[in-house]
Amino acid sequence: MTPPVITAYDWVPDFARGLVRDLPVRWALEETGRPYTVRYLPQGSQKGSTHRALQPFGQVPTYEDGDLVLFESGAIVLHIARSGSGLLPADPAGQARAIQWMFAALNSVELPIADFGMASLFERDMPWAKDRLPVVRARVQDRLGDLAARLGEAEWLDGDFSAGDLMMVSTLRQLRGSGLVEAHPALAAYVARGEARPAFGRALDAQRKGFTGQPPQSAAMLAMQEEDA
Amino acid sequence: MTPPVITAYDWVPDFARGLVRDLPVRWALEETGRPYTVRYLPQGSQKGSTHRALQPFGQVPTYEDGDLVLFESGAIVLHIARSGSGLLPADPAGQARAIQWMFAALNSVELPIADFGMASLFERDMPWAKDRLPVVRARVQDRLGDLAARLGEAEWLDGDFSAGDLMMVSTLRQLRGSGLVEAHPALAAYVARGEARPAFGRALDAQRKGFTGQPPQSAAMLAMQEEDA
Repeated sequence: MTPPVITAYDWVPDFARGLVRDLPVRWALEETGRPYTVRYLPQGSQKGSTHRALQPFGQVPTYEDGDLVLFESGAIVLHIARSGSGLLPADPAGQARAIQWMFAALNSVELPIADFGMASLFERDMPWAKDRLPVVRARVQDRLGDLAARLGEAEWLDGDFSAGDLMMVSTLRQLRGSGLVEAHPALAAYVARGEARPAFGRALDAQRKGFTGQPPQSAAMLAMQEEDA
Repeated sequence: MTPPVITAYDWVPDFARGLVRDLPVRWALEETGRPYTVRYLPQGSQKGSTHRALQPFGQVPTYEDGDLVLFESGAIVLHIARSGSGLLPADPAGQARAIQWMFAALNSVELPIADFGMASLFERDMPWAKDRLPVVRARVQDRLGDLAARLGEAEWLDGDFSAGDLMMVSTLRQLRGSGLVEAHPALAAYVARGEARPAFGRALDAQRKGFTGQPPQSAAMLAMQEEDA
């Protein structure tokens, strides 16, 4: 059986290394013991028509397995979880709850986090940055407070480690360096538990080793990838 | 068999009517012909501990079916789609692609749209609003351009109408009044096709008829629900 092929960038700026969204896909493949190969894209080429035929928004990752082509990291992780074992409970109710946490990670939790990422990185030098950042930060704090209250002292969000935890840890990692997760020691420990999993370590290492390319030639190309980070 | 119970608000401000997230859940239940009952929450009570035991972020909707309790509209719609018929293709590859569009609606497409919603509604009177809104608007335009290019002249995103279209139409409807969807006639026609489905009409009508309650007493309560809209 030919292993599935994913796409990843051959170069991203330092702040994005370890955060590009092929990471949760690599992590899911590692958790389920599935070998894979990577097609690396030079910066800029993700916006070309060849890649857009696979990914309409000109981003990574994509996933190709025989005739099946998928984009959107959450959908790819769910497909991998459903095709293998170890990432979803066997009982239908437990499975629905694990999937619920995937959607929570990518919608309810990521919405304010993505806004915070834009505000603290790409709008950093805008005239409104100083006044607006605390507002955005407060929204993230609210959401993390709710999440921490639900997690409590549990190891994972619902029973054993699942694709829901994989996506939630991946989303929370976007806040690294902000101190926001660290304000909730139980949440910080939760992220650390995810990052301590051997499969995560292998996935992170593989992503890092893939950055063998060159930065793009122009600032315009850099701006184009901002939303992929 | 006892029908599932969802939660919805008994009052929201006019701008949010027809957009609260119990709508896609009602729509999915209508598409699959599943009867349901609604527990209406007076404004403010969604932030109390009783509701938070079901929904950690203090929002609607929730879904209760026997012992199964779910939150997060995407997860609920997917669960309904997998439990019934008419919202997911039978073949595994087609099913994975329909789910891919659900995640795309709730992540890649909604991220800039949610930011635009915050900017145009809740940050409207902030000192930065005038300068920042065009920046946020441009991000939505980029994403919609990509989506419109992928949709082309097709009726739905991938073959027959699916849970992916249900979520995408629901996400795009958040832009009503902005003119952003209308800039792409094929995309506007796509949303109109979704809204013309009898199941959508029944769902919208049911949501509207549920607003029999009173507005909250304080501005603080109104602010609390802003992210639910």
